[in-house]
Amino acid sequence: MTDLPPAPALLTDLYQLTMLQAYFDGGMTQTAAFEFFVRKLPPQRNFLIAAGLEQVLDYLETLRFSDAELEWLAACGRFRQEFIDRLAALRFTGDVDAMAEGTVFFADEPILRVTAPLPQAQLVETRIINLLQYQSMVASKAVRCAIAAGGRLLVDFGLRRAHGAEAGLLSARASYLAGFSGTATVLAGVKWDVPLYGTMAHSFIQAHEDEVSAFEHFARSQPRANTMLIDTYDTEAAARQLVALAQRLRPDGIAIQAVRIDSGDLAELARRVRVILDAGGLDGVRIFVSGNLDEHAVRDLVAAQAPIDGFGVGTRMNTSADYPYLDCAYKLQEYAGQPRRKRSEGKATWPGRKQVYRSHDAQDRFSGDLLTTVDEPASGEPLLRPMMRAGSRLEAAPALAALRRHAAAQVAALPDALRGLDPAAPYPVTVADRLRALADAVDRRVRRGQQGSASPAPDAPDHP
Amino acid sequence: MTDLPPAPALLTDLYQLTMLQAYFDGGMTQTAAFEFFVRKLPPQRNFLIAAGLEQVLDYLETLRFSDAELEWLAACGRFRQEFIDRLAALRFTGDVDAMAEGTVFFADEPILRVTAPLPQAQLVETRIINLLQYQSMVASKAVRCAIAAGGRLLVDFGLRRAHGAEAGLLSARASYLAGFSGTATVLAGVKWDVPLYGTMAHSFIQAHEDEVSAFEHFARSQPRANTMLIDTYDTEAAARQLVALAQRLRPDGIAIQAVRIDSGDLAELARRVRVILDAGGLDGVRIFVSGNLDEHAVRDLVAAQAPIDGFGVGTRMNTSADYPYLDCAYKLQEYAGQPRRKRSEGKATWPGRKQVYRSHDAQDRFSGDLLTTVDEPASGEPLLRPMMRAGSRLEAAPALAALRRHAAAQVAALPDALRGLDPAAPYPVTVADRLRALADAVDRRVRRGQQGSASPAPDAPDHP
Repeated sequence: MTDLPPAPALLTDLYQLTMLQAYFDGGMTQTAAFEFFVRKLPPQRNFLIAAGLEQVLDYLETLRFSDAELEWLAACGRFRQEFIDRLAALRFTGDVDAMAEGTVFFADEPILRVTAPLPQAQLVETRIINLLQYQSMVASKAVRCAIAAGGRLLVDFGLRRAHGAEAGLLSARASYLAGFSGTATVLAGVKWDVPLYGTMAHSFIQAHEDEVSAFEHFARSQPRANTMLIDTYDTEAAARQLVALAQRLRPDGIAIQAVRIDSGDLAELARRVRVILDAGGLDGVRIFVSGNLDEHAVRDLVAAQAPIDGFGVGTRMNTSADYPYLDCAYKLQEYAGQPRRKRSEGKATWPGRKQVYRSHDAQDRFSGDLLTTVDEPASGEPLLRPMMRAGSRLEAAPALAALRRHAAAQVAALPDALRGLDPAAPYPVTVADRLRALADAVDRRVRRGQQGSASPAPDAPDHP
Repeated sequence: MTDLPPAPALLTDLYQLTMLQAYFDGGMTQTAAFEFFVRKLPPQRNFLIAAGLEQVLDYLETLRFSDAELEWLAACGRFRQEFIDRLAALRFTGDVDAMAEGTVFFADEPILRVTAPLPQAQLVETRIINLLQYQSMVASKAVRCAIAAGGRLLVDFGLRRAHGAEAGLLSARASYLAGFSGTATVLAGVKWDVPLYGTMAHSFIQAHEDEVSAFEHFARSQPRANTMLIDTYDTEAAARQLVALAQRLRPDGIAIQAVRIDSGDLAELARRVRVILDAGGLDGVRIFVSGNLDEHAVRDLVAAQAPIDGFGVGTRMNTSADYPYLDCAYKLQEYAGQPRRKRSEGKATWPGRKQVYRSHDAQDRFSGDLLTTVDEPASGEPLLRPMMRAGSRLEAAPALAALRRHAAAQVAALPDALRGLDPAAPYPVTVADRLRALADAVDRRVRRGQQGSASPAPDAPDHP
């Protein structure tokens, strides 16, 4: 298949396995609820876009330990055979509730909840974070580029400097979801019908004896889709050569479609090249620019009214270069029917299974979110919806184009200030009184436990 | 197999395929030499560590288009059937010369050269950059953490916030190569025998009725390898509970090995916990800390003489958070026997196939590098060595532990100032006169070409 195959089950942290062994030892297999959320938005983000859910559901549906993995576990000497037998039989049989991909979200709002027997819900922590944080981070950066580009062509060029194969592929997906026009990454076109764009490399120019020969060769090989890279030696000289070449190609029905400028002062070069092309009758040839761009560079080029028709944005988008990670977590919020909470300094969490209700104003703009316990009645639109029950998806994966439309509608419904690239006053997210009261109750229970007896907990009674 | 399977051939940029079609059209299949190098070190790096070569060689040895990929290419309407037939038969039959993984390198020094028929050498550009830039970036960040840790235990905790599956796996490899003690990522232990370390998660504590029950449960399940996470509720209270627990466990022959602190003022908490543990007779219990650490945080904790025995470092290392990419390129330097060069503003390259010679002083420290054409005799140690000929590896992949020893020796041989975390005066890299003269000659030839005739180049004579 033309796909990246699923990651092995052993692509996880060692502690998941040692904890699982203890859970099985202690009979701790009651239902747990974990939630994934971002603790704090990066400094330059006014909102985030949820992405990666489909890959999480794929992972959960296909999770199993292969024979080779089980053999390795048996041979490594860290685990008991009865535990390895449990792993051999392990499948994900739990539930997932989540925000649809493309949904706008904010700090402390869960975007995904896993409800499953504790060992299952624990084991999947590492890969769930790995999938959700990367695509959400990329979508949240890419949407800023799309806002800056203001409807101009915007293409993901980032595969080469993405952090590995999966990052390259998934960033093409996440950036398209967030509003990019398409990608250069062929496999993303194969997998999700992301529109594909390509130009040419400097090496193509260099391999020819002279630049115009390279242009002519490429135009004849690609008569209907050619973008000429014109900055290898002298950008303006190359533009002039293209004008002459276009005249020679015209009788053969071949037209030059676009040029790309990849270095230098892009706004100034675009202006000069536009003049040269227009004077030579090539006013239909579009100008495309690239080279270490991010949302700020795109915004500046647009603000300068440079005659630029499109942007290639890569590395700085798909590494989220100004802040290449999200301060996120996947935390236990309930076990065996009882809400749980972490209180570590600066990392305390809201306990219990939660829901996010979003309110809209009269213009149907987002006016505020309410973070509540899952069973509290509240007004507004509940953002976490059932996605998987008993290990099976409730619906087939939506088309990526549909998720992209959802993301665009979400961004359009944001208060205007939040859509800007500069930091704005935070969007209002209210924690419901009942949730605050629950947090206090959990704290009191934990304090009693800290002071109390040292006997084993009732749910770990049969420990050897 | 317990491995990430190879990426599909279509994990590439669209332009590679359109350029290849033109190359085949034009009969441009003569030998090309491309080199991978870093244009400029990131602001906070005094040197870089080469990594990723083994994955590049794997990729080249197994490169082929699957039937499904060929069918997609035929159906997509962008390519002619005769080109798809060429792709079906395409294998990598070229040569690779490269620096050994773990070798220290600097700006403008090629760390890998591919010499192959032009279409092959071109096609592999995207994935070669994708593999070399990520692992070299991680190794170059990780080595700074290792220097800061000064021999203390240093474990990669980064899988969850790595950019996807491959980044998580390869960063475990690259950080171990660069001097980490090991990783939490199980699959890296499976694949490369990277030593595995694990502790426990906050969820393990939270799932129990009280903290001490969780500690006891874990100690009994893992009597010989347990690290207790003590910051879930109150770090000092947890340490005191551990002292009491240790006495109860002793008759059963169970000892607590270590504690982990993941939040708060790590130096101060480590001091207080050390006092509590020592007073309780647990002076053998080691203190391990984690939580958004990087080389600067590790250095500060060491400088503060905090009683810390080990560090877990993740996200900020494997995303290279202060600078999450290398300004690198894979550029055509020679085609059909003739040196080539790009002159784009700020991105000019040195033409031709090159070698890097490293000189040593009387103490066997590195004293300077010379960048030369490949055939120029020079003194010093040539760093690029034959790794692959006619598509086959010359030697089996070296053990990762051997590469790690090589990296350690390289770092030890650096001038002292370069090993510091702060920016130092650049290491001397000299460009040989002959290489400068060659660059001038190439420029003169290109200028003649720019001014010259517009006839097709001689190596593309049969173009339709």
